[in-house]
Amino acid sequence: MKLVNGAEYIESLRNLHPTIYYKGKKIGDVTRHPATAPHVRAAAMTYALANDKEYKDLATAVSHLTGRTISRFTHVHQNIEDLLKKVKLLRVLGQKTGTCFQRCVGYDGINATYSVAYEIDEKHGTGYLERFKKWLTWIQDENLMVVGAMTDPKGDRSKGPADQPDPDQYVHVVERRDDGLIIRGAKLHMTGAVNSHEILVMPTAAMDERSRDYAVVCAIPVDAPGVTMIFGRQASDDRRDRRERIDVGKPSFGAVGGESVIAFEDVFVPRERVFMDGETDFTGTLVYRFAAHHRANYGACKTGLMDVLTGAVSYLAQIQGTAGASHVKDKVTEMIHLCETLYSSSIACAAEGCPTPSGAYMVDTMLANVCKQNVTRFHFEVARLAVDLAGGFIATLPSQYDLESEEIGHLVEKYFSGTKGIPTKHRVKIARLIEAMTGGTALVESMHGAGSPQAQRVMIFREGQLDKKIRLAKALLGIPLKES
Amino acid sequence: MKLVNGAEYIESLRNLHPTIYYKGKKIGDVTRHPATAPHVRAAAMTYALANDKEYKDLATAVSHLTGRTISRFTHVHQNIEDLLKKVKLLRVLGQKTGTCFQRCVGYDGINATYSVAYEIDEKHGTGYLERFKKWLTWIQDENLMVVGAMTDPKGDRSKGPADQPDPDQYVHVVERRDDGLIIRGAKLHMTGAVNSHEILVMPTAAMDERSRDYAVVCAIPVDAPGVTMIFGRQASDDRRDRRERIDVGKPSFGAVGGESVIAFEDVFVPRERVFMDGETDFTGTLVYRFAAHHRANYGACKTGLMDVLTGAVSYLAQIQGTAGASHVKDKVTEMIHLCETLYSSSIACAAEGCPTPSGAYMVDTMLANVCKQNVTRFHFEVARLAVDLAGGFIATLPSQYDLESEEIGHLVEKYFSGTKGIPTKHRVKIARLIEAMTGGTALVESMHGAGSPQAQRVMIFREGQLDKKIRLAKALLGIPLKES
Amino acid sequence: MKLVNGAEYIESLRNLHPTIYYKGKKIGDVTRHPATAPHVRAAAMTYALANDKEYKDLATAVSHLTGRTISRFTHVHQNIEDLLKKVKLLRVLGQKTGTCFQRCVGYDGINATYSVAYEIDEKHGTGYLERFKKWLTWIQDENLMVVGAMTDPKGDRSKGPADQPDPDQYVHVVERRDDGLIIRGAKLHMTGAVNSHEILVMPTAAMDERSRDYAVVCAIPVDAPGVTMIFGRQASDDRRDRRERIDVGKPSFGAVGGESVIAFEDVFVPRERVFMDGETDFTGTLVYRFAAHHRANYGACKTGLMDVLTGAVSYLAQIQGTAGASHVKDKVTEMIHLCETLYSSSIACAAEGCPTPSGAYMVDTMLANVCKQNVTRFHFEVARLAVDLAGGFIATLPSQYDLESEEIGHLVEKYFSGTKGIPTKHRVKIARLIEAMTGGTALVESMHGAGSPQAQRVMIFREGQLDKKIRLAKALLGIPLKES
Amino acid sequence: MKLVNGAEYIESLRNLHPTIYYKGKKIGDVTRHPATAPHVRAAAMTYALANDKEYKDLATAVSHLTGRTISRFTHVHQNIEDLLKKVKLLRVLGQKTGTCFQRCVGYDGINATYSVAYEIDEKHGTGYLERFKKWLTWIQDENLMVVGAMTDPKGDRSKGPADQPDPDQYVHVVERRDDGLIIRGAKLHMTGAVNSHEILVMPTAAMDERSRDYAVVCAIPVDAPGVTMIFGRQASDDRRDRRERIDVGKPSFGAVGGESVIAFEDVFVPRERVFMDGETDFTGTLVYRFAAHHRANYGACKTGLMDVLTGAVSYLAQIQGTAGASHVKDKVTEMIHLCETLYSSSIACAAEGCPTPSGAYMVDTMLANVCKQNVTRFHFEVARLAVDLAGGFIATLPSQYDLESEEIGHLVEKYFSGTKGIPTKHRVKIARLIEAMTGGTALVESMHGAGSPQAQRVMIFREGQLDKKIRLAKALLGIPLKES
Repeated sequence: MKLVNGAEYIESLRNLHPTIYYKGKKIGDVTRHPATAPHVRAAAMTYALANDKEYKDLATAVSHLTGRTISRFTHVHQNIEDLLKKVKLLRVLGQKTGTCFQRCVGYDGINATYSVAYEIDEKHGTGYLERFKKWLTWIQDENLMVVGAMTDPKGDRSKGPADQPDPDQYVHVVERRDDGLIIRGAKLHMTGAVNSHEILVMPTAAMDERSRDYAVVCAIPVDAPGVTMIFGRQASDDRRDRRERIDVGKPSFGAVGGESVIAFEDVFVPRERVFMDGETDFTGTLVYRFAAHHRANYGACKTGLMDVLTGAVSYLAQIQGTAGASHVKDKVTEMIHLCETLYSSSIACAAEGCPTPSGAYMVDTMLANVCKQNVTRFHFEVARLAVDLAGGFIATLPSQYDLESEEIGHLVEKYFSGTKGIPTKHRVKIARLIEAMTGGTALVESMHGAGSPQAQRVMIFREGQLDKKIRLAKALLGIPLKES
Repeated sequence: MKLVNGAEYIESLRNLHPTIYYKGKKIGDVTRHPATAPHVRAAAMTYALANDKEYKDLATAVSHLTGRTISRFTHVHQNIEDLLKKVKLLRVLGQKTGTCFQRCVGYDGINATYSVAYEIDEKHGTGYLERFKKWLTWIQDENLMVVGAMTDPKGDRSKGPADQPDPDQYVHVVERRDDGLIIRGAKLHMTGAVNSHEILVMPTAAMDERSRDYAVVCAIPVDAPGVTMIFGRQASDDRRDRRERIDVGKPSFGAVGGESVIAFEDVFVPRERVFMDGETDFTGTLVYRFAAHHRANYGACKTGLMDVLTGAVSYLAQIQGTAGASHVKDKVTEMIHLCETLYSSSIACAAEGCPTPSGAYMVDTMLANVCKQNVTRFHFEVARLAVDLAGGFIATLPSQYDLESEEIGHLVEKYFSGTKGIPTKHRVKIARLIEAMTGGTALVESMHGAGSPQAQRVMIFREGQLDKKIRLAKALLGIPLKES
Repeated sequence: MKLVNGAEYIESLRNLHPTIYYKGKKIGDVTRHPATAPHVRAAAMTYALANDKEYKDLATAVSHLTGRTISRFTHVHQNIEDLLKKVKLLRVLGQKTGTCFQRCVGYDGINATYSVAYEIDEKHGTGYLERFKKWLTWIQDENLMVVGAMTDPKGDRSKGPADQPDPDQYVHVVERRDDGLIIRGAKLHMTGAVNSHEILVMPTAAMDERSRDYAVVCAIPVDAPGVTMIFGRQASDDRRDRRERIDVGKPSFGAVGGESVIAFEDVFVPRERVFMDGETDFTGTLVYRFAAHHRANYGACKTGLMDVLTGAVSYLAQIQGTAGASHVKDKVTEMIHLCETLYSSSIACAAEGCPTPSGAYMVDTMLANVCKQNVTRFHFEVARLAVDLAGGFIATLPSQYDLESEEIGHLVEKYFSGTKGIPTKHRVKIARLIEAMTGGTALVESMHGAGSPQAQRVMIFREGQLDKKIRLAKALLGIPLKES
Repeated sequence: MKLVNGAEYIESLRNLHPTIYYKGKKIGDVTRHPATAPHVRAAAMTYALANDKEYKDLATAVSHLTGRTISRFTHVHQNIEDLLKKVKLLRVLGQKTGTCFQRCVGYDGINATYSVAYEIDEKHGTGYLERFKKWLTWIQDENLMVVGAMTDPKGDRSKGPADQPDPDQYVHVVERRDDGLIIRGAKLHMTGAVNSHEILVMPTAAMDERSRDYAVVCAIPVDAPGVTMIFGRQASDDRRDRRERIDVGKPSFGAVGGESVIAFEDVFVPRERVFMDGETDFTGTLVYRFAAHHRANYGACKTGLMDVLTGAVSYLAQIQGTAGASHVKDKVTEMIHLCETLYSSSIACAAEGCPTPSGAYMVDTMLANVCKQNVTRFHFEVARLAVDLAGGFIATLPSQYDLESEEIGHLVEKYFSGTKGIPTKHRVKIARLIEAMTGGTALVESMHGAGSPQAQRVMIFREGQLDKKIRLAKALLGIPLKES
């Protein structure tokens, strides 16, 4: 691993020159711009843990390609233990950042591409896996951050890629040259894109024969010519942009991962960076594997966030003198219960993992989908309970400027004080943390990241083995399994 | 009614000079400051409807004191029809503003004080009701906006007012003069305070004998000497303050009601503006009545908001081409179902209303508490469904500056377009509206306004008539009603 | 009213001779057979209340046809007060019987037929209303019990009546004679049929032109030639049939209403008893009105049952010494809260009622559907809470024979005792009551009676006025209402 | 293993002579009495699987005491794989019996006693483990069924064992002799007791010094002098007792496990069968371990039941022609989703298991409690969905006597037919299966078995590590971990 700690990671970003817009202006240095720096810091934590004695075992792995120690985020899962360690690593990172640390999407993209490249080669006699291993070895050795780029704009959702009035609503190959491809289109909601080194482009859905040009997997540097990023807005982002260290809630880290649009305006991709080109018969499998890995994560990283939130409301209840009330304890219990229910599915889908033909391990897809489906329900409910426990003042609290005002600061100090011995400022800070973690963007990301709720339901039904279940019922009743 | 339309109301505010701080600075003119103007406009809608043929019948009433036509928001309910009309008026206003229009809290304060003043006089031979009628007639004739001021900071919640280390954690009388009282303390979360004319101070809880100085009801002009307001922060309030008309979500109106701290630093209240002074035996009844009226409102105004939100996601689904999907229709159905369930309780507690000894009508308190309790659950769920239907882009969408940028505006236009014929800008606007109505402040207010969830549960248990219910069960079994 | 009390009602049934089968055998006297007598007693309570000073005002009405005092269950709603009184009457009856008292289905059938007959006559120049008034006057004067017969077997649910392989899967006219009709088919789930006097046959769904023979409304005596009833099984019905007065749970009344199949094998209906014959254009309206009235009831009668159940678990908690535990109080609070939420919708849809062209009043259909939809969720949840509070012993308790056994009765007495002073037998009885009210049949009926959950959702979506809601959202954003 | 298949197990029961009462009468032969035979058959399935090639690996284990192959139900978990195999075994058995197969309670009792006996010996220098190993080796070699007997009547629940007015409300030692103990008291809800060989008595709660006589663990043959069992009632048990093979729902197996009261009237226990006597300091640990193991099971066996139920409603939907409706598919999806969520926790608490000092493995206790807590919610919800999908006829269906009646059988055949080609009898059978699996006893057992809901919440709060979570929140805000 070349980048051995957070500082080196941050330094490495300064050598890249991606084109990034935010609120109509270009961002020069993502590591210093107030809109992006918090997200850089969260990602830097993934580098930092690899050097922390306590977490090294979780945060690193031994490459099956080189035998060298690498960041786990660049590793291809070799067994169930790898899958379980991922879960535990993500929860710790959620606890330490209280936000999205952005590296899972590349991690899962690497794992999905690896196993599928193997299978394409087996069937079609192509040589994708060797190319991919070469690229991946470089990623592992340099310890680069990769953004997995899957979601296309999709335009009119009742039509597939090939039938769109605007052919660019899905990323596609517009020209094939001897030395590589020219691609065009865009990817939306790209978590961590602005502070990644590489983009791993993947198709967003299963495709048919007619969509050959849309069946493309390839790797592109973030600052390749023709790549433009537009960094999105988040709830209360001005507080972050103005560096309001109290009101922002999380002074060091972002609300969520920092999402961007990545537009590809006729970007050239050298042949050796292309890992699928036209094999539509494998698009479904690729998406399915990526999605399952990614859905499994949400019961890990989000439970880390919920741990922080549960701690925050418990602390606030102590300050407010309500920690002993039975309904308070019951609501805290419920927060923990929901959190651990989510964690169960992350652990379970790892424990029930199994190898693909390539040797790379997959999580149990049913349980991974169940995991994410519950996230789309329970995160809102946990937030609701936190808001209930915190009290209405998290929505009516005066600003930090008032708290620090010479004229009226004493009124804010006086009337927002709690238990003796805790400074009002601590109560205000914890309130702002809860506000930041329960409102808007944080929950929307949790709902839709790794696939919207209905996407999981489709998979759960599909994998539900209804035929087998019907046979079980019939067997109990002595009804013949085959009826006319 | 002196103030006959919204413009006159706004004009009238310019003649007041309340002391208001926001983000550390004084606000000179609430009607023009970007932080407060949207809230002024929402309140102005309550004036506007009184002149709208379609809504006049709902928005006005005939004063039982003077026989003159008045704003319903200054009326004392005389019958069930009045209670029902209030519900319908609030839903319409929610639909037209998509936010809190702030006048209910004074409305409910007037109704609670009126009926309780009557009963205090009956028991203690005081003359509060006459004083109150005089003040109220003036309010009605001038058509003034009143903020009902109930919630105190409460300091250490395990102690009552008289036992607080800091005696000012509840508003109290610090001096009694021949011509009036001097009061000190503060009220938190004061909806609409900055754009009201008058403050109606009420105690926040049932009190015992030892808290005589805290049992005070009185009316104070918003710009009385010693009154200081601090206007609170809300989610994404910078968008409002910077007049970002697209990104703010609701271009004309606020997120919620615009809440303030009101600090009373030794404020003088003339005797004729005092409607309770020391009658602790009526504090419980006053709070109980105010709370019941106020809780009943939430199934009316919030359902108006939910109507807007349901419309917004339905429109967005049309734009995105998903309106016909069965899971989309099912989620829209659920939004409507939850909304109408809330509305049921508002209507029902009005329909089951009954007169107090003063003749003023009260809602059914059980059903009013049930109404609010469901709001604390269903508003989050309705928001969750809206976020589900809207899609993840409401949390990752680039800013309006990017949309309008010469360099990259075309990319935003292209990749956030939907169904042919609908401009991308419309899709963006609707997304921002949904974002504004589902995140942070909007839901916190809905949770805690009119009392936190546990407050309603205490009342529901207390009014549950368990003894009667036990008798019903025993009767079915032939078990004697009295057992040794 | 000829039948002036419960005893006279019971006596009157002895003069009828319907053909009823149960467990393969004919029932001779429904008033004495252990399977049907409890249901007869529950219906008798509707007669008894009409003579009870406390409830007379609810249980009777003044006929708009004759001016005579009649049972409310034979009344056509003339105003909102009638609708509200119905709700209150049903809750009282639920409280007094703890079960279904069966008369609503005829009551709602009468109201639906009355208003629709008027409208058919208006459009088609038929004379149904006069016929119907004549029949209804007789029903009112005699005070007869009518079973509203709507639900057909439906056969293959993907096909309408006219396309069924077996034409009898919906009741239909097989021959038209000068003096009347011959009908064939069956109705399922007929609550109270075996102890009614008359059957009011109605179509079960909106029908098209091709289903003219299925569009029939008519009245048939329960013992008309060709009518056969088969009385269905219920959970633990043997306890009832063996007259196990403790273990049965409710010693006097049934689990639910006592449902039957009614088969019509070429039954002749005289012309003056036919109130619709072929007017398919009114089938939808009839079903819609019947369903709305009937759905509105469930927030009334079922809340009566929940009152009993809440009382039962509260009493049991006292016996077991757990009544003061905070989680017990919280669960009881939740039971009450859910119950009153249901009641809200029943009250609200009555309070928002409005007249049909005939003058007969209709409930608000949106709120009536919302009411029933919540019943299909909350009744299970209330039962779940009751089971939680009662404890596992309601599923493992020895029989009453063991309690009364000479050899081991002392062991049951000893080891199922509770708080000092309450006989073990009382604890056992209350446990059996809870068992009877929370398991199986009781909840299934609550789920499907008056229409299965999806039926309500279809109506809620249909009546949701999405166009209006979209306009509200657009108005807030200044988006033109009409877009290209 | 001496008993190598189901038949031998059944035969072995005929050699025992326990005293069992049911409905006031003695049961002579549990293997033939209609009330107990179905439960015997379900337990026999645990023997049968050990000889089934497909399941042998799950159903047997290698004894760490003897190295011999034994039934897994008599095994002490030696590693995580053992814990995972248990989960999978239980799900398969749930699928094959659709009910409780009763052996887990002894299995978990063995595991809890084993690890605790080790720790008592370590601390107190006793020799319990050697005694226990001897007994256990015999159990393993003979392959006997053990009922773990934990739940006492508890009398007045506000008092501990030592403070009860009646000292027998908890099982206790009434006399200590040289050769053993005399015990008295009772255990309630004893699943599988009537068809077990041995009773393993354990204390029901953590106890203090004053309750030494109540801190007893020992093994007693089911037919020891002084042991009396009273077999409890279940919903619709008459159908089982009368051998109504269609209406009973599950023709071969019981509703749940078949629970009994076991009364101990001064039963002698030889010294070598005593595994705890007075070590109150270990009562809490014993209960805690037993409970955790037992709670973990419910996400396994109950999901097996839910698989059957999901199959049953899917099959019924096919018969009724509704299987393709979107709301039907959505509800089936939800059933699967809830089921797999439960399964996740069972798998997860096994995967996160860890060794006790004795070497015996424990599940993760947080996740085991979370598992059971969700069972107490989701089983009701799954049942509710099944009832919704099945339709109201499962509560109104005529009896099998009517179906087979010469006079009216043709009517039942005709009007309860579904899709062409499926006999009406199959539809009826599947309806009765759903009825049996969703009503009454089945759900009560699921709610309270392995501990009532509140018991899990207490553990979840206790194990929630709030201190650590508060530190996480503070760390994010830079608030010192120690405050004055």
